[in-house]
Amino acid sequence: MFRESPRAPTQDGVLRAAGKIAAILPPTPLLPVEIGGVRVHAKCDNLQPIGAFKIRGAWHRLTDLTPEERAGGVIAVSSGNHAQGVAWAARELGIEAAIVMPADAPRVKLEATAALGAEIVLYDRAGGEDRDAIANALCDERGRILVHAYADPWVIEGQGSMGIEIAEQLGREPSRIVVCCGGGGLAAGLALACRDSAIVPVEPKGWDDVARSLQTGTIQRVEPGAPKTICDAIQTPSTAPVNFAVLRERCDPGVTVTDAQVRAAQRFAFAKLRLVVEPGGAAALAAALAGKVALDEHTVVTISGGNTDAADFARTLSTTD
Amino acid sequence: MFRESPRAPTQDGVLRAAGKIAAILPPTPLLPVEIGGVRVHAKCDNLQPIGAFKIRGAWHRLTDLTPEERAGGVIAVSSGNHAQGVAWAARELGIEAAIVMPADAPRVKLEATAALGAEIVLYDRAGGEDRDAIANALCDERGRILVHAYADPWVIEGQGSMGIEIAEQLGREPSRIVVCCGGGGLAAGLALACRDSAIVPVEPKGWDDVARSLQTGTIQRVEPGAPKTICDAIQTPSTAPVNFAVLRERCDPGVTVTDAQVRAAQRFAFAKLRLVVEPGGAAALAAALAGKVALDEHTVVTISGGNTDAADFARTLSTTD
Repeated sequence: MFRESPRAPTQDGVLRAAGKIAAILPPTPLLPVEIGGVRVHAKCDNLQPIGAFKIRGAWHRLTDLTPEERAGGVIAVSSGNHAQGVAWAARELGIEAAIVMPADAPRVKLEATAALGAEIVLYDRAGGEDRDAIANALCDERGRILVHAYADPWVIEGQGSMGIEIAEQLGREPSRIVVCCGGGGLAAGLALACRDSAIVPVEPKGWDDVARSLQTGTIQRVEPGAPKTICDAIQTPSTAPVNFAVLRERCDPGVTVTDAQVRAAQRFAFAKLRLVVEPGGAAALAAALAGKVALDEHTVVTISGGNTDAADFARTLSTTD
Repeated sequence: MFRESPRAPTQDGVLRAAGKIAAILPPTPLLPVEIGGVRVHAKCDNLQPIGAFKIRGAWHRLTDLTPEERAGGVIAVSSGNHAQGVAWAARELGIEAAIVMPADAPRVKLEATAALGAEIVLYDRAGGEDRDAIANALCDERGRILVHAYADPWVIEGQGSMGIEIAEQLGREPSRIVVCCGGGGLAAGLALACRDSAIVPVEPKGWDDVARSLQTGTIQRVEPGAPKTICDAIQTPSTAPVNFAVLRERCDPGVTVTDAQVRAAQRFAFAKLRLVVEPGGAAALAAALAGKVALDEHTVVTISGGNTDAADFARTLSTTD
């Protein structure tokens, strides 16, 4: 399913990515937030220009392409945030991009990706089509480079730049980083960036393949028929070997959150942080609010994305479940 | 109506306030945002711990009180954001605070102010009660210091610290600052902070006393019976002499925005900036989006507050007018 990774991601790679990203994007805010009487910190990557941290990995990957690779263009697979990251970086660098996206992705993400000038190739997520197979076939057919959403050492290193920013803003490495986890790109990147921090991956209930992989020591999959989740951004069937090699060494046990806990976290972020957070971007905050992780004053919670349809967000604000 | 100001606010005072504020609060983000094809900057003071810029003036004022004044406590008048600023600063400094608030203030603001430990004294805004008279009487009765929401040189200087941050973040003074304007505390502070920037005050339609004051050269009032506005935070009947002395010298003509334009700006901030912005905090953005002010790459638009009831925000997201 995953192509073999050309190399392992490294801390040096994270530092190099952080330098490139600092040159074009200001650090996102690290806001203090009180949870259960403890003052922790929220790293707000929903305030990136594309509304998600994915701009980091995409920028590191695309800027490292050779001139020949740039001329050939790129393919990405994404439910919407990596799509926008790749489309944004491709536009900035004048590279052609085609993005394989699930047909049921939030409309706001489909529209934003198209608005950035990328070609959209839809697939049927609910029906179980293998998006990686589609993308690999497109790459072979068009001679393009695949920019995988997480199974890519550059992408992992780029996402890790968030950890370099956090450590600078906090004046030290966090004791613990609670991180929204889909394929494990951000979690692995943060683990490489902050070697002394505990890394706690948070997944939606029923989509806890990383938690089960950490438990068993081998990569587990979410099988077709898993329960629905509102966390479209981190609804990922499995992590990849290049990610798991890092996660296995560094992660604390993973935790899961329910849709109701995620919606409560979105309402909390609305009222206390004045931030729009999408479901998948609120998973780590949900775990912290639900008392599922230990918190201290050096704990950082990632807020990883804010791309959500207005109607969905209005509904979340209007409910209390 | 206004007590005579003990002194005029100064640029040196703004710089001193900026130093005190930088010591306790990180600068709020200055986010790039594209409006009508022009890349301008949004200064996001809705991300302050109390969700509004008012924390700045309150901190500068309360930290400059003498030990005797601190022991006596403070009184403030506010529809909710200045209330939270004063309550926050008072709690940090161990000072007693009572806040005169309109009974029809957003519930979220009343609750947040009470949660910060301040005493709330309600008055009838709709019925035309003079909140300043109530506050002055309370001060005399209890021997307390009045911390006016805008008619106060410390408050003006404190709000001006936003301009010092903006200039540092932009690497120069803005060409133009488009500013949400109620009593004119922030506008006057920014005018003192950024002497080379054009200052454009934005008021709600029907509550354009500052625009009319600038036009006529003397302070004008909004008379009872003015149309309703959703911009509770900047629904102020008139500016004060200490503010107008600065505004008259430095402001461009004022502009006004309708409720519909404000709601459109709130939806824009939701979708493009992933920020929760309250109506009064979105007025400047509304003016920029509606084409009411000239924009260039060195233009800054203030996003001054984000305290809004969830039901109101959900309704705004669900409408298109």
